[in-house]
Amino acid sequence: MERVKARTLSGFMELLPAHQIQFERVKAVLEGTYQRYGFTPLDTPVIEASEVLLAKAGGETEKQIYRFTKGDTDLSLRFDLTVPLAKYVAMHHNELAFPFRRYQIGKVYRGERAQRGRFREFYQADIDIIGDGSLDIINDAEIPSIICQTFTALGLKRFQIRVNNRKVLNGFYAMLGLTDKAGDIMRTVDKLPKIGADKVKELLMEEEIGLSGDQADEILKFIAITGTNTQVLAALESYQGRSEVFDQGLEELNTVVKYLSAFGVPEENFAVDLTIARGLDYYTGTVYETFLLDYPEIGSVCSGGRYDNLAEYYTDKQLPGVGISIGLTRFFYVLQEQGLLNDALPTAPADVLVLPMTEDLSAAVAFTTACRSAGVKAQLYTEPKKFKAKMNYADKLGVPYAAFLGEDEVKNGVVSLKDMTSGEQEQVSLSAAPRWLMDKVSVLNQGAPIKG
Amino acid sequence: MERVKARTLSGFMELLPAHQIQFERVKAVLEGTYQRYGFTPLDTPVIEASEVLLAKAGGETEKQIYRFTKGDTDLSLRFDLTVPLAKYVAMHHNELAFPFRRYQIGKVYRGERAQRGRFREFYQADIDIIGDGSLDIINDAEIPSIICQTFTALGLKRFQIRVNNRKVLNGFYAMLGLTDKAGDIMRTVDKLPKIGADKVKELLMEEEIGLSGDQADEILKFIAITGTNTQVLAALESYQGRSEVFDQGLEELNTVVKYLSAFGVPEENFAVDLTIARGLDYYTGTVYETFLLDYPEIGSVCSGGRYDNLAEYYTDKQLPGVGISIGLTRFFYVLQEQGLLNDALPTAPADVLVLPMTEDLSAAVAFTTACRSAGVKAQLYTEPKKFKAKMNYADKLGVPYAAFLGEDEVKNGVVSLKDMTSGEQEQVSLSAAPRWLMDKVSVLNQGAPIKG
Repeated sequence: MERVKARTLSGFMELLPAHQIQFERVKAVLEGTYQRYGFTPLDTPVIEASEVLLAKAGGETEKQIYRFTKGDTDLSLRFDLTVPLAKYVAMHHNELAFPFRRYQIGKVYRGERAQRGRFREFYQADIDIIGDGSLDIINDAEIPSIICQTFTALGLKRFQIRVNNRKVLNGFYAMLGLTDKAGDIMRTVDKLPKIGADKVKELLMEEEIGLSGDQADEILKFIAITGTNTQVLAALESYQGRSEVFDQGLEELNTVVKYLSAFGVPEENFAVDLTIARGLDYYTGTVYETFLLDYPEIGSVCSGGRYDNLAEYYTDKQLPGVGISIGLTRFFYVLQEQGLLNDALPTAPADVLVLPMTEDLSAAVAFTTACRSAGVKAQLYTEPKKFKAKMNYADKLGVPYAAFLGEDEVKNGVVSLKDMTSGEQEQVSLSAAPRWLMDKVSVLNQGAPIKG
Repeated sequence: MERVKARTLSGFMELLPAHQIQFERVKAVLEGTYQRYGFTPLDTPVIEASEVLLAKAGGETEKQIYRFTKGDTDLSLRFDLTVPLAKYVAMHHNELAFPFRRYQIGKVYRGERAQRGRFREFYQADIDIIGDGSLDIINDAEIPSIICQTFTALGLKRFQIRVNNRKVLNGFYAMLGLTDKAGDIMRTVDKLPKIGADKVKELLMEEEIGLSGDQADEILKFIAITGTNTQVLAALESYQGRSEVFDQGLEELNTVVKYLSAFGVPEENFAVDLTIARGLDYYTGTVYETFLLDYPEIGSVCSGGRYDNLAEYYTDKQLPGVGISIGLTRFFYVLQEQGLLNDALPTAPADVLVLPMTEDLSAAVAFTTACRSAGVKAQLYTEPKKFKAKMNYADKLGVPYAAFLGEDEVKNGVVSLKDMTSGEQEQVSLSAAPRWLMDKVSVLNQGAPIKG
């Protein structure tokens, strides 16, 4: 027979079993946290009509789309979860209760140039809160608390959520009469950490943007405001009264900071940071980025913000919202690369491998069934192999326990349970063994998916 | 602004929030059961190289494929989870431990003609056990026990797993000297429930198949063997000694039946049924179909079987396996259509909606946070709406509990908790309330996803 070489496309993550279990564990923490915050799960199609999906898209995004026809229908694979959400909310406006809080963890597709750590198929994990007509600012304070809870539950400690408000930035540029140039200026200022203040000033004064030296200095002075959240907010007060937009932005920022501690976000996990702008045009108020303090080179691992109008391409309803997104596939890839995954947690498919030592397997089958009923993940090994091969299999799977059922055990109503890590072995009665295993395994599974 | 009509493609399931939660609940039961049986989760890409995905496919399947090019790469969306498994196992043969037990619940794509209850994007939920060179027959007995556990955990009682063995059928046709015609005969016999025995006999004797009257009678007599499992197996014994293949098939069938009760499968959920053949060519031994006894018109909701060689298109390794697949999207659609979903279980995104009645929200935020820490799914309502609008929102979400925090409550360190179903309301101390809610909600969530 002519054979085809089995391969997986580059840019598509496909994990080996142990890594897949680690991935599932990270994903489960996200789902659990989102659910505890009262977000409802959504699952929209991967394929949409191109006309619907690309109502807004353009430029770089459109080039990356997987787009094709089937029959005479023009189809595209979703490239994010926000456009499908907009479609969904516009379609089902009358059936939904607002504020509408949803999470979605799903694969999206972008035909980017393949390179290390860049994926063409990747999971996004999004949460959004959508209001009908209006949405209170306190939702903007809840969002960082969700990020904080999620990251803490994952086992991370040294992370920081950086928050800003686009109205503060827009208002500030309005004060300087630079509203038209605000976009260009923000993109230039974004380069500050990479190229330094002098170079930024130079770029701001070049012909394309064309600021005066004074204007550039004002901007650099503003961006340089740092310190504790209280200090930054106090420094911003001195700009008050010169732009309505600025004043509103500052009030919002103050409210967000005020409620954050009530939401349980520790001071060290959160900072007002005037350099955070989020390039995307549709953010209109609060913006967030989240950094792992020991891995700044990764960039933001969780970003988002407030937008005025989710679904304007589909409906005349005003639907403001606030949300965040984690690029889960890339995040997991980075955790793996940096050796941050907690390898102490079991990654075997089963908690116990049951090894029958008798010809009739009925006793072993019954014991395996009893384990499963008790909630223990149990696998029965039935292949007629030598003892050594069986133990090699147990080792390769990485099961925490092996259970031996020989004639003596069956006769005495016991099972020999071997701790595969320590090598210790003890006999436990068949009736007590499932609970015994469950207790042991619960202890083994304690701990977060990421090293602290 | 010019608007695009928001719509979802026909043949693509997109659920409203309450139904999505019901779907997730069904899916969670499948995942939980598969894990307890020691299957490891896999997640392969939706997109594969066409050359890899279509190594085997042909005919009807190939026409249904979503196939397209991106750049100069010929791509296809997966149409099942078996071909990606074959690819995966061939690629990672050296890294996997055999028997390799995996489950995968994922979306697959088939561009079928759209009609009610037919989906172009749908979840399959597959489990397979793959051996390296050989795989013991007892695995074939474990598979029905997994189906049984899954369906029982879902809340179903009146279902029956029907089991047969292709070797029994093939051996029987070999006895009659009809090996070449076995495929045509089985396809014709498959029509028995629809068209009756006389019409089947007629078709068998028509030119295309061309059996004699005696041969047709022999076949109908064989297929008519029914009764308890013991009776059917006893009747089959009379055919022994005339075909090696038949004898081997009967021995396998006997072993499967023998171990089923040890695996905890009740007699009423399981039947040896000689009419089950499974059209697919690659099944070579045990075959399964599962029926809901009160809804025979739905057809099989969970099917599968034993195959000799999973990945022959990719590798010269002999990889026998046994597995089953549930068409989860269609299954859920049917449950919904037949009114079988257990609507007594909560479908709200939150267990409790916290309604602050004071201007400063700090106390309400702190209480909501405490609920979440205790594992209660809690949502804080922050919109400045009238009381009636807030209660309408709680009703529309279907939250089981509303929590009121007014000035009196805050002063006295209590919260008023209202049971939204009964209308009863009581005050509970702020510190005791999260646990109080958790206990109530645990009771509400008892019960299976499907009505008994």
